[in-house]
Amino acid sequence: MAQNMYDNEAFFKEYIQLPRQVKGLDGTPEWPDLQSMFPRRLEGKNVADLGCGFGWVSRYCIEQGAAKVLAVDISGKMLSKARTFPSNGITYVQGDLESFNLDFDAYDFIFSSLTLHYISNLARLLSEIKFALKPGGSFVFSIEHPIFSAPRNAKFIKDSEGHSVWPLDGYFDEGKRTTNWLAEGVVKEHHTVSSWITKLLSARFTLWQIKEWCPSEQQVKENPMWADEQQRPSFLLIRVVKDVPTLEQF
Amino acid sequence: MAQNMYDNEAFFKEYIQLPRQVKGLDGTPEWPDLQSMFPRRLEGKNVADLGCGFGWVSRYCIEQGAAKVLAVDISGKMLSKARTFPSNGITYVQGDLESFNLDFDAYDFIFSSLTLHYISNLARLLSEIKFALKPGGSFVFSIEHPIFSAPRNAKFIKDSEGHSVWPLDGYFDEGKRTTNWLAEGVVKEHHTVSSWITKLLSARFTLWQIKEWCPSEQQVKENPMWADEQQRPSFLLIRVVKDVPTLEQF
Repeated sequence: MAQNMYDNEAFFKEYIQLPRQVKGLDGTPEWPDLQSMFPRRLEGKNVADLGCGFGWVSRYCIEQGAAKVLAVDISGKMLSKARTFPSNGITYVQGDLESFNLDFDAYDFIFSSLTLHYISNLARLLSEIKFALKPGGSFVFSIEHPIFSAPRNAKFIKDSEGHSVWPLDGYFDEGKRTTNWLAEGVVKEHHTVSSWITKLLSARFTLWQIKEWCPSEQQVKENPMWADEQQRPSFLLIRVVKDVPTLEQF
Repeated sequence: MAQNMYDNEAFFKEYIQLPRQVKGLDGTPEWPDLQSMFPRRLEGKNVADLGCGFGWVSRYCIEQGAAKVLAVDISGKMLSKARTFPSNGITYVQGDLESFNLDFDAYDFIFSSLTLHYISNLARLLSEIKFALKPGGSFVFSIEHPIFSAPRNAKFIKDSEGHSVWPLDGYFDEGKRTTNWLAEGVVKEHHTVSSWITKLLSARFTLWQIKEWCPSEQQVKENPMWADEQQRPSFLLIRVVKDVPTLEQF
């Protein structure tokens, strides 16, 4: 079973104060890039949101005309909060993505934000997602970038000239990384970029789009403390498709 | 026109002493991984080797039964040396890949080793390669990994605990990098991993395989000075295909 730190009181208390939880998509700096990788039309589509949290993207899909959204999260606390928002068309289900089953050939679009790097059995989940997508359907997801997750000490340091550099090491050492992010002992899975892509290709997905995200000039202007963040990617955003989308499915 | 440092006396004198030039494929540590990405059968195939250098891979393809190989290099010195080896079936041509033209629908397999990171107009070359491949044909290439090419100071440093770390910065700052590798002022083009892949997808290639290379345990045992090289990738190896290969083309 996957770790469920969201139902840890201390973690949750901190977590709900993050801008992306308080402000939703407006407080999610990578959202414009993620959104640009969505299928262009969501009207009438069946969507699954894996690791839905407070359901911001599920609600966005409904606003864009999606017929229904299955929104899955491991955390009861997250889902309770999500259910306090109007949620016509959204079915919230508590589930562990390490073992969750999806219906065959049921979804036009499957989405997952910052969740897959917690999954141990990634091959199983990717195969489940492939199974659940309709032909031409898209899977869009974001993860912490492997350059971000790799280092033993994931904090910028100064080089001998006083410049901020990201101390990359352990890039090829795939596996668990324990961090103290909001709470002690949060466990993430590190894979290389090529390993992520190879797992997708092995599940017989076609790679459609890929973006490495860092804050834009405008975002750094509004949040000067993010300046260093432009030196290396913090998130990896990927869109893969099952077979080739028709024009209508683009 | 592309920079041709290979015809610089000082550079060439150093260059021909590199293990990969003296020993050929046996002195090329990433060769086993590259080779594993080649189409399984080369018998009777038409091959192009872009940036062929001394022609080691061109000759390998002929040994594997390729019908003919077009071997292109910008450097007259490199080609003169290549021509001193037996080269039945290989046509050596001096050419600048910034403007070189390939015949339409002519090649089963196109290969390029550590050359594309010198090309400014990558979109033109990729489109030329796509044009020249037969349907189902493969393009396999290696480049310096973007993590390797990005930093202002591309040398390992020690962190406060005395560990070797790779001082990554400037990852998103795409464009020219001037290094003093063997000679002063060698100019390479840095792109992000996602930018490389996006250029390939934009040329309507299908991504087939991707590997990030670092020395193996065995290689580090034989070359202890390479230990740090395992902390981050040095080469990026990619196989893309034009349309989907038939079983015979795998």
